[in-house]
Amino acid sequence: MDEIKNKIRDIADFPEPGILFKDITPLMQSPVLLRQAVELLIAPYQNSNVTAVAGMEARGFIFGSLAASMLEVGFIPLRKPGKLPHTTHKVEYQLEYGETSLEIHADALAENDNILIVDDVLATGGTAKASCELIQLLGGNVVGCAFLMEITGLNGRSLLTDVNVHSVIQY
Amino acid sequence: MDEIKNKIRDIADFPEPGILFKDITPLMQSPVLLRQAVELLIAPYQNSNVTAVAGMEARGFIFGSLAASMLEVGFIPLRKPGKLPHTTHKVEYQLEYGETSLEIHADALAENDNILIVDDVLATGGTAKASCELIQLLGGNVVGCAFLMEITGLNGRSLLTDVNVHSVIQY
Repeated sequence: MDEIKNKIRDIADFPEPGILFKDITPLMQSPVLLRQAVELLIAPYQNSNVTAVAGMEARGFIFGSLAASMLEVGFIPLRKPGKLPHTTHKVEYQLEYGETSLEIHADALAENDNILIVDDVLATGGTAKASCELIQLLGGNVVGCAFLMEITGLNGRSLLTDVNVHSVIQY
Repeated sequence: MDEIKNKIRDIADFPEPGILFKDITPLMQSPVLLRQAVELLIAPYQNSNVTAVAGMEARGFIFGSLAASMLEVGFIPLRKPGKLPHTTHKVEYQLEYGETSLEIHADALAENDNILIVDDVLATGGTAKASCELIQLLGGNVVGCAFLMEITGLNGRSLLTDVNVHSVIQY
């Protein structure tokens, strides 16, 4: 775990003054540690009958597709507005710094599918909550929200009270 | 191969009128076919001493990180401007529909590293060419550019004459 933590570096004042950004690109340079990180990410869900992993654009695509591959299930991209080409559903939400929305393809999953939501970081929880809403809008069950990192001081879990939340590293 | 092709659907007039978009989200719903697609993507490079895979935001993150995982090497994200938090290098280029730039972290690779560039689609080749330039700017060798799909009518290879180019499916 310390080896993984050592590959995440702090960048001060990014993307805005006062924000301490957790840069995971050094972790991604190490195939062994990246694999370990994803294994720890999915460990609680190995027996949860997950039918697909959903990941948020853009860093969630990396962890989400790797998690889906390890769980041997499909991957569902959750994207910024206007990026998904087919019929979509949309949820608008507040971001740590701004306002945005997230979209899912209307045929991304079937009713009662068990979806694991994956992202690199849980901050204020806005993106994760929107992701849960998109899955539930299509009739899917959110079996959990799994994050590589959790910024506990921002209390993102307070927005995710009705779902299982797991993080590998807490700050 | 036909099974993979059957999971890629045409979307007319996306993102702009007159463009026939190849939607790979159905392929990503199938873990078996997605894995086969990535295996075909990296097959020519199994003995190329690849030291890292570079993938372009955002769909290239999916195929790039899976390719890196299968080759057991690190993953380098190539991102749109302002997204990478540390010191970056930038290349500006023309897109099929507009103008943009691509960035890489200055410490993303070491001199003489062997980099495989991965993306979902080769269209006009602008993004791929910019990616090659970023790798070469840092002293890396581009061992190849590998794409799930190639839109041959757009002749992207004409921009990539000095590197190896591989595509799994041609349209």
